[in-house]
Amino acid sequence: MTAATLNPLVTNLASPPIPAVQAWGKSYDGSRGELIDLSQAVPGYPAHVNMLQWLGEAASSLAYTNYGPIEGETVLRQTYAAHVSELYDAAIGTGNVHITSGCNQAFVCASMVTAAAGSTVLVTDPFYFNHETTLSMLGINTRTVRCDASEGFVPTTDAIHAAMTQDVRALALVTPNNPTGAIYPANRLQSIFDLCRELGIWLILDETYRDFLPDGAGAPHGLFSNVDWQGNLIQLYSFSKSLCIPGHRLGVITAGEAVVNEIAKIMDNLQICPPRAPQAAVARALPELAEWRARNRLEIEARAKALHQVMDGLNGWKLESVGAYFAFVRHPFEGRVSAEVAEQLAKRVGVLAIPGEYFGVEQTPFLRFAFANADITTISQLRERLGGFNLSPDSITLG
Amino acid sequence: MTAATLNPLVTNLASPPIPAVQAWGKSYDGSRGELIDLSQAVPGYPAHVNMLQWLGEAASSLAYTNYGPIEGETVLRQTYAAHVSELYDAAIGTGNVHITSGCNQAFVCASMVTAAAGSTVLVTDPFYFNHETTLSMLGINTRTVRCDASEGFVPTTDAIHAAMTQDVRALALVTPNNPTGAIYPANRLQSIFDLCRELGIWLILDETYRDFLPDGAGAPHGLFSNVDWQGNLIQLYSFSKSLCIPGHRLGVITAGEAVVNEIAKIMDNLQICPPRAPQAAVARALPELAEWRARNRLEIEARAKALHQVMDGLNGWKLESVGAYFAFVRHPFEGRVSAEVAEQLAKRVGVLAIPGEYFGVEQTPFLRFAFANADITTISQLRERLGGFNLSPDSITLG
Repeated sequence: MTAATLNPLVTNLASPPIPAVQAWGKSYDGSRGELIDLSQAVPGYPAHVNMLQWLGEAASSLAYTNYGPIEGETVLRQTYAAHVSELYDAAIGTGNVHITSGCNQAFVCASMVTAAAGSTVLVTDPFYFNHETTLSMLGINTRTVRCDASEGFVPTTDAIHAAMTQDVRALALVTPNNPTGAIYPANRLQSIFDLCRELGIWLILDETYRDFLPDGAGAPHGLFSNVDWQGNLIQLYSFSKSLCIPGHRLGVITAGEAVVNEIAKIMDNLQICPPRAPQAAVARALPELAEWRARNRLEIEARAKALHQVMDGLNGWKLESVGAYFAFVRHPFEGRVSAEVAEQLAKRVGVLAIPGEYFGVEQTPFLRFAFANADITTISQLRERLGGFNLSPDSITLG
Repeated sequence: MTAATLNPLVTNLASPPIPAVQAWGKSYDGSRGELIDLSQAVPGYPAHVNMLQWLGEAASSLAYTNYGPIEGETVLRQTYAAHVSELYDAAIGTGNVHITSGCNQAFVCASMVTAAAGSTVLVTDPFYFNHETTLSMLGINTRTVRCDASEGFVPTTDAIHAAMTQDVRALALVTPNNPTGAIYPANRLQSIFDLCRELGIWLILDETYRDFLPDGAGAPHGLFSNVDWQGNLIQLYSFSKSLCIPGHRLGVITAGEAVVNEIAKIMDNLQICPPRAPQAAVARALPELAEWRARNRLEIEARAKALHQVMDGLNGWKLESVGAYFAFVRHPFEGRVSAEVAEQLAKRVGVLAIPGEYFGVEQTPFLRFAFANADITTISQLRERLGGFNLSPDSITLG
């Protein structure tokens, strides 16, 4: 009798970071006031009441109980194509759109359609941890493109060049960035796209947080205006953040029609079709809740300003980067690992943040604050919580 | 400027078979009456009205808009663990249950947790096509275990032994079987499980169709009563078929707690958590719609009997195997590929079935009928449709 063995690519993965961090929060005794959860990126305001109504109407309808199209509901693909066309001043068609069950799944599809096990995908350092673990579990090698604080954590074409090897199939970027918040300028993205074309690799561009770009910033980039964009660009987006419905799991891929057709083969295996009812609801919400989303964008901008004000007066803490949703904060405890800082912050003063090294081993001087989760009143409480905080000596073991 | 290349493991996959078959149906002119769709396995009766109500209530609730636990909603894991414990007279706990977004995704997780690219998983021949394409796209090799009509398409331990090589990590079986309908006897499953333990490989057992086993058949098997089942067994199930809600995408894995913990790492990357609202609804439906499901089981049994009667009188057609949901039917056109037979059946007499070779190259004498899709009146129409059907000569090209 022999128990079977498990895939080492999976057993070697670290446990999912968010539940681990949230467990620290459960040990907080509440003595400094309510827990301030800046860990997982979840909108700190509820979904619109109409959104809930549309979700309920679709879910209770017989119309969405059967299997749907693999690529997604036609109405949502059409509506989203029009939305993207307007946002980027580009000609995106229904055939360029593939709906997924969340943006992590969109990244799984983008990874699989471009790279097999044994080939390589470039990610930034710091990276979004699920990108790194997704590639690892698929047996796809990763190489990192260094992003320095001195460059505002925006990758340079030189750094990409330096990371390039023969077996690289794609470069995965996130803008506005997770974890740093950095907003990659449109001209830098065009230079990077030009380099990807020159190198014959894919640019996988995750724009989950684009709805929270500063008001009036215009189109995030002009990549869709390159006539040959379909040969090198795969763009990802999530409906979770701006519509406040992560629990309903909907993301989307924009790519060339040939790529969409190949992704449909992957999605047929991954889950046959995305959940249908929320797709119908989101198709209604995209145009109808445009104003509500615009107001939220202003609110998140105000939260970013509030965070600036709070952090300015905090000795030893430094806001290295702050963007559309996240801030990357240098903690004052040089030489101490940020997991220890984050654990003690959570347990002793009730502030949940993600340790920098979860986004790359070099990132231990930092913490990620998902500041958009918290309202301005809550953000202002950070001054007292962080200001009075001192790290316990190494010898103290926390419960 | 160089367009980037795609992963050949994906581009080499055939297009998803169900949309291809359904396209044939769209060319049918209706001259023989309504299209009889025996292609994709979808319950031919609607979801219960309470099911729709519960789905709507949960989807319109703020409670399920945020991210949920990776492993699934605790209430559903508990309810399902109790359900499985009762059904198999076993002690299954909440920690043994991982919810997924459909049973295809459960198979993706089971494949990835057991096998990396380059290792091998055994499947039967005929196989469920999504099992084969899932393994192929992941770069996992497949070897087939021959299942003969003379053995009722049930695999033998000898055939498994014959297919075994050093790099095999798992054996994937489906019972009641897709495509043949074959119901694997409990004692055969125990022998196969014993062999898997001896060989140190996983048995991945997909029981999507177990709710349609003949009434009073008892537990499908006693594998969960083996004290060491957690070391070699991963069981899969779908809520789509018995609750008539495939569009809401919910499946489930039952496995050892250590395996569930590893699958959680995969699922965190694949989609963070399964869609939450339908989980809450299904947790209510499992106990409350038990009687309704029992009545449907009797109805499907009656449909199987009706199919037997229809096929008995049909010259040249032979019902090789009929089970809980599917029938595997030998067509009368020996030497002609079943894709041609299926295409002509669809276009000329409006009967949609899946060609045998979609389930393995050796299976071209057969067609799969998802008979459970059609009510008894519709099934009885097959006599006239199939009886009068003759394959066009090779030279005739269909539009």
